[in-house]
Parts: sequence; structure tokens; C-alpha cells
Amino acid sequence: MNFKEELTGLTALVDNYLKDYFERLVSEVPETTLIESMQYSMMAGGKRIRPVLTLAVAKMMSADLSEVMPFAAAIEMIHTYSLIHDDLPAMDNDDYRRGKLTNHKVYGEAMAILAGDALLNEAFNLLFKTASEAGEKMEMFVKSSCVIAGAAGKDGMIAGQVIDMESEGRQIPEETLKTMHRKKTGALIMASIIAPAIFTGMSDDEIKALSEYADCIGVAFQIRDDILDVEGTSEELGKSTGSDAKNKKTTYVSLYGLDEAKRMLRDVMQKAVGTLSVFGEKAWFLREIAGYIAERRD
Amino acid sequence: MNFKEELTGLTALVDNYLKDYFERLVSEVPETTLIESMQYSMMAGGKRIRPVLTLAVAKMMSADLSEVMPFAAAIEMIHTYSLIHDDLPAMDNDDYRRGKLTNHKVYGEAMAILAGDALLNEAFNLLFKTASEAGEKMEMFVKSSCVIAGAAGKDGMIAGQVIDMESEGRQIPEETLKTMHRKKTGALIMASIIAPAIFTGMSDDEIKALSEYADCIGVAFQIRDDILDVEGTSEELGKSTGSDAKNKKTTYVSLYGLDEAKRMLRDVMQKAVGTLSVFGEKAWFLREIAGYIAERRD
Repeated sequence: MNFKEELTGLTALVDNYLKDYFERLVSEVPETTLIESMQYSMMAGGKRIRPVLTLAVAKMMSADLSEVMPFAAAIEMIHTYSLIHDDLPAMDNDDYRRGKLTNHKVYGEAMAILAGDALLNEAFNLLFKTASEAGEKMEMFVKSSCVIAGAAGKDGMIAGQVIDMESEGRQIPEETLKTMHRKKTGALIMASIIAPAIFTGMSDDEIKALSEYADCIGVAFQIRDDILDVEGTSEELGKSTGSDAKNKKTTYVSLYGLDEAKRMLRDVMQKAVGTLSVFGEKAWFLREIAGYIAERRD
Repeated sequence: MNFKEELTGLTALVDNYLKDYFERLVSEVPETTLIESMQYSMMAGGKRIRPVLTLAVAKMMSADLSEVMPFAAAIEMIHTYSLIHDDLPAMDNDDYRRGKLTNHKVYGEAMAILAGDALLNEAFNLLFKTASEAGEKMEMFVKSSCVIAGAAGKDGMIAGQVIDMESEGRQIPEETLKTMHRKKTGALIMASIIAPAIFTGMSDDEIKALSEYADCIGVAFQIRDDILDVEGTSEELGKSTGSDAKNKKTTYVSLYGLDEAKRMLRDVMQKAVGTLSVFGEKAWFLREIAGYIAERRD
């Protein structure tokens, strides 16, 4: 199987599910500005890396992809709400994301706050609704949802955002940088991999291996992000580059320099691939997507 | 049993649970500003009406109150997050609530947005965690949690907030006013009553009766709010009064006048009490609390 084809296929599955989901919501709910603003950000060209990872893990276990789609969709909703709130004037005050106006630039600040709230809420609404209809798989579904709820909250993504905020404009030590990324982006990537692993009944050893893998690609994702802010073009990224240096942000590049950051990226990539040995050939897509994350241009 | 004593007792149960809950979080999490700001608003003198209703319904069914406490706490967290976000400069821009500085006046806008997000997330984190440990009661717990997730989101509380926002500064027809309140405040009051009703295994007829009761006290709550904005004092309310008229807000008083609003309040109160006949004597507390809501001074 060709990696690009498989990536395109899984991304399309996610895109179509989310497209249908929000079109249905728009058609069902009479007061639609809220739903439209939710839909706007959900359909604003995200790469769907997290939900694709969810489907890929399930596929590796030969599971029914439709059964894990609620995890994938909920995680993408949580990811999207966090972007909407991060972009607000009181936070990063960004006008563009992925080349499109940010939610509050289109719908206003108040609606953007509510659209973010509603996406976070809808993620859990979808998870609880699916759990309530999961029959004999309810227990596994609930256990997997716990991982998502934990990763998104005060100990995970939001804690990371707070560290980021409190580190603004000053250089922070490596350990703080790592903790920040592990929480801010790593936690939800971890959940996108571990939730389907639990749901499909993986062994503890397999889950441990996937946890290490997830940890590595979370770090790889962030190092690549930092490199792109120096080397990428605004056209590719759909946002301004060089903003980290301008904002005196601590990054892997500011701490170690560009060459060392690239070496670290290669190392963590190799480590990610190494953790997958327990799965043999069937982990081929997870191996390839680690490379894709480390080499992406946007 | 004396109503005031019972109300004080149930409120204390909720207060102590939440106090312990957030003190534990503060002690567990090293980066504490986020948790402190969550704790600040959770402990800012809320009346705990919703969680008290949850406990009261469970008590009426002779259920173990500790089993429904996660519903009660989650609902109060959701209520509190909605207040934090409502108070933000981009929304109602309020400096005080219950006589205390609002969250963003103490912790700043960015932290207030994140504290709200984290409380919403924590509500579902608590529900999923409890569900995963609920054993044979998992199915009922998940079904009850569905009601909460549905009430808080895009079809419920948040939709009501959007209608409120879009109605700002102009008079709206009675039907819109009712829909707004039914969603903005009614939905979560409904969930606080129906979640424990489902969990404790009430019959469909009993749940239907309680739904009508919840609908009535939601309306009563709002009419009383509108009357207090005209008749109450700032000292009692801990916020400025007369703001509805100043903001040209549509209220029961602006639509019908003060006397008619009071008559409507009495009517809806009587209706609330009437719906409880199916439960006989054991619904005594729910009868009394309807009166309490209709006559409250803050």
C-alpha cells in the first residue's frame, strides 16, 4: 500500500464524516450562527493528523473504523476549539490561520468564545451519546473516552497552554519547554493514539509501545513546527513566519540552533519508528506518518 | 423535616464536596494558577441550586447521594464556566458577580477563558471517570451524563446564550424570550433534575412529571430574576440592579409589567407544585424549593 494514498484515504474519511456531521447540525438547528461558526473552523483546512492517527491505530488492529470515528471526530473538535480560543485577542490575537480569517475575525469575539465552548461540549456530547449506544462495548468506549477527557483538560492541553502563556517573551529551560509541549500538543496526540488502542483491546505491552511512539511524534511535531517557523514560507504555512523569534519565544531552534534541532528531529523520529517493532509489518503506516510529520512543509 | 435545615444540609454537602475536590486539585497540580482560578470561581458564593436539586431528586428515591454527587458537581462546574465566560469583556463585561470580582478581573482575560474551558472539560472528565468505575451502574450513569452533555451545549445553554446576545438592546417577542430562557438557564436546571431521575431508575411517567416540574421552576427562576432586577437591592444581589432596563433588555417585567410578572410567577409556581402530585409526600422538598426559588432575594 502506498503511504500517500492511504493518508489521503483516511483524511477523506475524517473530512467526510465531519462535513456530514456539521451539515446535519446546520440543517437541524434553527438558530444557525453558532453552528455556522463551529462549522467554519471545523472545515477551515485542518490536516486532520490526530483523527488520522486514531483511524490508523484502529486499522492496524483490523477494527471497524466507524466504531472509532467518534473518538477521531471528538479529538478534532477539541483541537479546533483550542485553536479558536488560542487565536482570540486576549490570547495570541491572530487574524489568520491556515490562510483563512480566524473565527473571531469572521464572527466576532463573543461568538468565537461560544463556538469554542460549543465544540468542546459537542466533543463530549458525541462521546457520551455513542457510549450510551455502544452495548457490550460500552465499557471499552468509556475507558477510551476517559483518556481523551483527561488529555484535553487541566492536566493536559489546557495546562500546556497556561505554561506557554506564562513563558511569553522570555527564554525558558529545556525541561519547561518539553513539559509545555508534552501537554499543549503532545497530550491530545497521545489520546488520539491511545484511545483507539484501548478500545480495540491492545495488550498492556502494545499500549506501552504506542505511548512511547506517541510521545516521540509529539516531540517531532513540535520540533518541526519550530524549524518551519524559521525555514518555511508564509504561503506554505498560511500564517506569518519568524513570529517565534519576534516574540522571543523559546523553541527548539532558539535553545539549540537550527542544525542541532534538525539532528534532534531525526533522532526522535528514529526512536518513534523503533518503538513500533513490537507490531511488525502491520505498523507500516504509523512508521511512515512519523516521517511525514517530521518532514511536513505546513 | 424543616425545609431550611434540609436546604442548608444539602448545600453543605455540595459545598464540602467541591471544596475538597478543588483543594485536592490544587495540591496535586504543580502549575497552580489555572487551578486556583478555577477554584476561585467555584468557591465564589454560588447558591448551589442546581446540585441541590440533583441531590434532592436522588434523596426522594432513597438513593445513595454520593453516587449522584458527580452529576451535581459536574453541573455546578458547567454552570460556573458559563458565568466566567459570560462575564468576559467580549460578552457582558461584568466586573462583579455575587459581590466578588469576576474571574478575569482577578486573573486576566486569557486565564479566565482557560479557566472556563478547564471547568467545562473537568465536568466531563469527572463524569467519564466516574462512569468508567461505575460497574453494573455504568449504563445508567452514561445515560444520565448524556442528558447533561446535551443540555449544556449547542442545543441548550450555549444556544440560549447566543439568542440572548443576538437580542441585545432590543425588545423580542414572548416566544423568543421563552425559548432563550428555556435554553440559557432552563436546560441545565432540567438536567440537574432529570440526570438523577434517570440514574435512580424512575419510571417514564415520573420522569415526565419531573420534566414539567423542571420546566416550571426554570421559568419561575427567570421571572424572579427579572423582578429582582427591578425590586432588589445591590447589597442583596451583589451586583448592580436596574441593568435590564438600562440595557433595554426584554424581560418578563418589560413585556408584561411588574404586577403581571408577579402573577405569572405565582401561576407557574402552582403549576410546578401540581406536577409533583404523582410523588405524594416524598416530594415535599421539591415543593418547598419551588417556593424558595420564586421568593428568593438574591
